[in-house]
Amino acid sequence: MNAEIPYKTYLTEAELPTAWYNVRADMKKKPAPMLDPRTLKPCSQQDLERVFCRECVRQELDETSQFIPIPGAVRDFYKMYRPSPLVRAYFLERALGTPAKIYYKFEGNNTSGSHKLNSAIAQAYYAKEQGLTDVTTETGAGQWGTALSMGSAFFGLKCHVYMVKCSYEQKPFRRDVMRTYGADVTPSPSMTTEIGKRINEEHPGTTGSLGCAISEAVERAITLPNARYLLGSVLNQVCLHQSVIGLETQAAFRKLGVKPDVLIGCAGGGSNLMGLIAPFMGEKLRGENDYRFIAVEPASCPSLTRGKYAYDFCDTGRVCPLQKMYTLGSDFIPSPSHAGGLRYHGMSATLSELYDQGLVEARAVEQTSVFEAAVQFARTEGTLPAPESSHAIRVAIDEALRCKAEGRSETIVFGLTGTGYFDMVAYGRYIDGEMGDTIPTDEDIAAGLAHLPEVKL
Amino acid sequence: MNAEIPYKTYLTEAELPTAWYNVRADMKKKPAPMLDPRTLKPCSQQDLERVFCRECVRQELDETSQFIPIPGAVRDFYKMYRPSPLVRAYFLERALGTPAKIYYKFEGNNTSGSHKLNSAIAQAYYAKEQGLTDVTTETGAGQWGTALSMGSAFFGLKCHVYMVKCSYEQKPFRRDVMRTYGADVTPSPSMTTEIGKRINEEHPGTTGSLGCAISEAVERAITLPNARYLLGSVLNQVCLHQSVIGLETQAAFRKLGVKPDVLIGCAGGGSNLMGLIAPFMGEKLRGENDYRFIAVEPASCPSLTRGKYAYDFCDTGRVCPLQKMYTLGSDFIPSPSHAGGLRYHGMSATLSELYDQGLVEARAVEQTSVFEAAVQFARTEGTLPAPESSHAIRVAIDEALRCKAEGRSETIVFGLTGTGYFDMVAYGRYIDGEMGDTIPTDEDIAAGLAHLPEVKL
Repeated sequence: MNAEIPYKTYLTEAELPTAWYNVRADMKKKPAPMLDPRTLKPCSQQDLERVFCRECVRQELDETSQFIPIPGAVRDFYKMYRPSPLVRAYFLERALGTPAKIYYKFEGNNTSGSHKLNSAIAQAYYAKEQGLTDVTTETGAGQWGTALSMGSAFFGLKCHVYMVKCSYEQKPFRRDVMRTYGADVTPSPSMTTEIGKRINEEHPGTTGSLGCAISEAVERAITLPNARYLLGSVLNQVCLHQSVIGLETQAAFRKLGVKPDVLIGCAGGGSNLMGLIAPFMGEKLRGENDYRFIAVEPASCPSLTRGKYAYDFCDTGRVCPLQKMYTLGSDFIPSPSHAGGLRYHGMSATLSELYDQGLVEARAVEQTSVFEAAVQFARTEGTLPAPESSHAIRVAIDEALRCKAEGRSETIVFGLTGTGYFDMVAYGRYIDGEMGDTIPTDEDIAAGLAHLPEVKL
Repeated sequence: MNAEIPYKTYLTEAELPTAWYNVRADMKKKPAPMLDPRTLKPCSQQDLERVFCRECVRQELDETSQFIPIPGAVRDFYKMYRPSPLVRAYFLERALGTPAKIYYKFEGNNTSGSHKLNSAIAQAYYAKEQGLTDVTTETGAGQWGTALSMGSAFFGLKCHVYMVKCSYEQKPFRRDVMRTYGADVTPSPSMTTEIGKRINEEHPGTTGSLGCAISEAVERAITLPNARYLLGSVLNQVCLHQSVIGLETQAAFRKLGVKPDVLIGCAGGGSNLMGLIAPFMGEKLRGENDYRFIAVEPASCPSLTRGKYAYDFCDTGRVCPLQKMYTLGSDFIPSPSHAGGLRYHGMSATLSELYDQGLVEARAVEQTSVFEAAVQFARTEGTLPAPESSHAIRVAIDEALRCKAEGRSETIVFGLTGTGYFDMVAYGRYIDGEMGDTIPTDEDIAAGLAHLPEVKL
């Protein structure tokens, strides 16, 4: 097809970023500080270090360093699966008959099947550096648990994963991938923690929730002699590590002599989207270039489009710090959706602040239209996308069709965060016409927002 | 680590091979001709065209063209997932403490999860070129069926896959991947063919076999108005298409200024191994360079190491042409193994002939030692390998340990043909210590070889 732009652009290993980009350094108005759940006062380094690794906390609180060096051992690990390709979606463009140029940054070429590995290996490294022996975490869909198991195996850490019980039972293969990498995987709620025992007593037969699994993992981290809790999204440190996606994308576009017009990503906790757009947002914040940014969320869990910008708890167990963010309320239960990675009631504090400043657009899309886009993408571009990533595909296709209608040849880039190999139940239901859409009513939304904590700073 | 050789070497898209390499052109003694199962006489182009696509038959019979051009449309499709990386296994070398240099050519970065796509897209293209509307095939483990579903979706062909019933029931996710790409997937034996009906009547409740699924797929191809049957291994045409693996490997090594000493691949039907080694074998046959080649097979299905070089049927239904090959007999039932892709009683005719000439070594390895190598590889190099590919990993590690014992720094390269994401039942059993080894007795082998057809040419 087009001979000038290759299908896939790979940077060389020498061009792999040597530092992560911290977008907060370029924001005039910073995200609001995290609050301690016991005092509702801003968290100190010390407060946070009880739960998280020291260096991760330092990065979490760092609002001024524009770049933070990537440690050599992390960069070496990155070389096993990075730089990831920036792909020109020639076949999708042809299928749509659009004059738009569509690119995607593909993060699925690793065994975790997603971008999660970018932060998992960094956090595992800092845990090892601190002299820890154990790390704990929770996993719902399983991608973060897999990524952290891989990172822990690499650095010789023992990894304890609390996996939401229904997911543990429905996705035994995800569980076995983690076990292959040496992790202990416990269905949550379990009898290994106080909070797990209490929930099992109060709700016999419960199949668990992410909120409960987080609380169990945090409790486990605090009670083990030499352990910390690691989290896979939402936090500033995670957005920071994910900036490697955007830095590579920026470098690849410069190499190609191409300037994108629209950048699109799915948003659950917000870290992959922030990772993709951060360096471009930096250009925009510094007045060097202008871009459109679109965050895509599921209509079943619309924190940006229908939530409220307020302080809220990050977990249902209320053991983690509070953040000011777009939230549906920590009690909000999203209607069933096959994009498990996007079923979070809140959103990254940084992304929330940028959205609040009008620098990012948001769009909510329905599940069936997402799977329609996923299948079209799979059949034309080859790769079977994760349901989460397919939210971005849906809007990228919509934007390309808008370009077609308007006769514009804009350059669109979206984040293809992962593959759908472990999501075949969802694909099967879609193929069989058994998938529906469930969108919360205004009453559902109001109920979720009714109990936000009262915070006075 | 070593700054001179990168972790991953990618060719540019411009360096993607423009022609497949046909090793038979460089063989002085050619593989024996295929025989028609009805007459036991050498097959003509016409005989084979009843079942296979015209151009595929031409390639099957072509013993003289050294190179056969890759059609533009196939080359464009290749660009979606090729050139594949040649990876330096620095982390595995470090874990083994070996002076050997270990490389692997990784074919798993595509949704079929394996090298199978290299031939599937070529065969689908030739089917489309011939004006066909439908293609049929069988699948056991599911990788070939997935690859052909993807190729068929791309060229707008209807793909009919007969999936061995026990596999259909145990691997519903593989089935749903194929359906996502638009394929019809039928558990075999089915009631859609005469042979399927007969087998269902004779063996009520049977869970099927590859031999039966082949026969059903061939019958379906012959009875549909505008269809042919496509096969994913064993045949010369498939080895030809897979030569893209070896050509890229050869080009990458030349770029790096490295000459490998030992090339290793797993061998079920033999096509991935032939694909990897063919261009290097060509150098050896032409007297330009010397290499060691090692074919690795499961101890449970040891066609090269314990079989006989003789004419045999390629399928248990005896509807496909006969080949002269290393075989355990078409009635041989391998003991249970989790490397479904290596449970074939015979072997590529070309590989068999090269092995018979002493140009290739063969080694049989036991399942538990294969999974031990697989887990070590996963934890050090990140990627979770397919059980089939892990046979090659086992022997690569053994060779690297030999180098360590002998103080030699040889260069070892093996084919990492695919990923193990759909093989987690096997990994789970290994992790739980529930995996065993079953090796056929001499009596089992003798029984399989007792009924080889008598062929007089």
